[in-house]
Amino acid sequence: MPNDPSPLQFWFDFASTYSYVAALRVEDACAARGVPLVYKPFLLGPIFSELLGIKDSPFNTQPVRGRYMWRDLERLCAKYRLPWRKPSVFPRNSVLAARAALGRDGAFVRAVFRANFAEDRDIADPGVMAALGGDVAPSPEVKAALRANVDEARRLGLFGAPCFVAGGEIFFGQDRLEDAIEWACGNAPLSRSKE
Amino acid sequence: MPNDPSPLQFWFDFASTYSYVAALRVEDACAARGVPLVYKPFLLGPIFSELLGIKDSPFNTQPVRGRYMWRDLERLCAKYRLPWRKPSVFPRNSVLAARAALGRDGAFVRAVFRANFAEDRDIADPGVMAALGGDVAPSPEVKAALRANVDEARRLGLFGAPCFVAGGEIFFGQDRLEDAIEWACGNAPLSRSKE
Repeated sequence: MPNDPSPLQFWFDFASTYSYVAALRVEDACAARGVPLVYKPFLLGPIFSELLGIKDSPFNTQPVRGRYMWRDLERLCAKYRLPWRKPSVFPRNSVLAARAALGRDGAFVRAVFRANFAEDRDIADPGVMAALGGDVAPSPEVKAALRANVDEARRLGLFGAPCFVAGGEIFFGQDRLEDAIEWACGNAPLSRSKE
Repeated sequence: MPNDPSPLQFWFDFASTYSYVAALRVEDACAARGVPLVYKPFLLGPIFSELLGIKDSPFNTQPVRGRYMWRDLERLCAKYRLPWRKPSVFPRNSVLAARAALGRDGAFVRAVFRANFAEDRDIADPGVMAALGGDVAPSPEVKAALRANVDEARRLGLFGAPCFVAGGEIFFGQDRLEDAIEWACGNAPLSRSKE
């Protein structure tokens, strides 16, 4: 008899364009297969800083990658019928949004992502976050919880976003959502061989 | 009436692990949809050198990415039922193989990729290449043709491998093969809107 699906952790940064596409797809995709979904906001900033020695997005420091990414986002949003407006500032500081998202549901996560990538609103602005229903006066506990997520991401070996983690396996990139779900369901060849 | 599919260019480096997965999938995938396939061997070395200032694979210079990639390759080869043996040397120098592949067919391309990633043979060794049926005494014209491919890759804005180019659009990564084929067939939303 098949086991219940493993939970799928969705690791994302509100500044990340490919995280936006994933965020608008992940909940329906998990629900369709009965996979429990866990939202894990984190920050790429400290990870890129340690790994690449940069204080910016690689899509800015490597313009050839940036040009590809912006075109790819248009195509992906058309493919998945998602709203899209290229943000006038990239990347936006996502610390306030990530703190506000801790313990919140998918509807809040999607609203913040849409603000950044469909409405070109500044998610680093406390007024914008408050209008979205976010807590803009995070407690020390909330700040510590976000730091703990970043530490956990580092321990897991995450080096970008989005990532999906299911059954101890990492899948990097929004285009691997389906592979992660198959893994969570025990339908991938190597996941089956573990049983 | 729908137009004929556009040709799909498959840009690959014989040293690239994800190019291996793509190389073993691309011909069947194109044939199934009537998409003409054009093999475009090139070299990532000069591109990484210019773009990233490194003389090695990013999977070696960033071990956290390398650990992910090696596990991901196991999973992908299991998913697509491809043979896989982690090569004892990575990346292998692919200049000899890339020159030998110019003007050759998919069977030769796949044989060289299998030698590197399923049989752990040194494709930089002229004896190995000769045994695979490759010309190991390239003419000045052949050398120039490979340089021209690298120049074209640079002009296109390719920054990694594999890439698929169809109808003027670039798709980076073996996991985007299906998207590239839809584009070549005019079935992607933005490709339709061009008509």
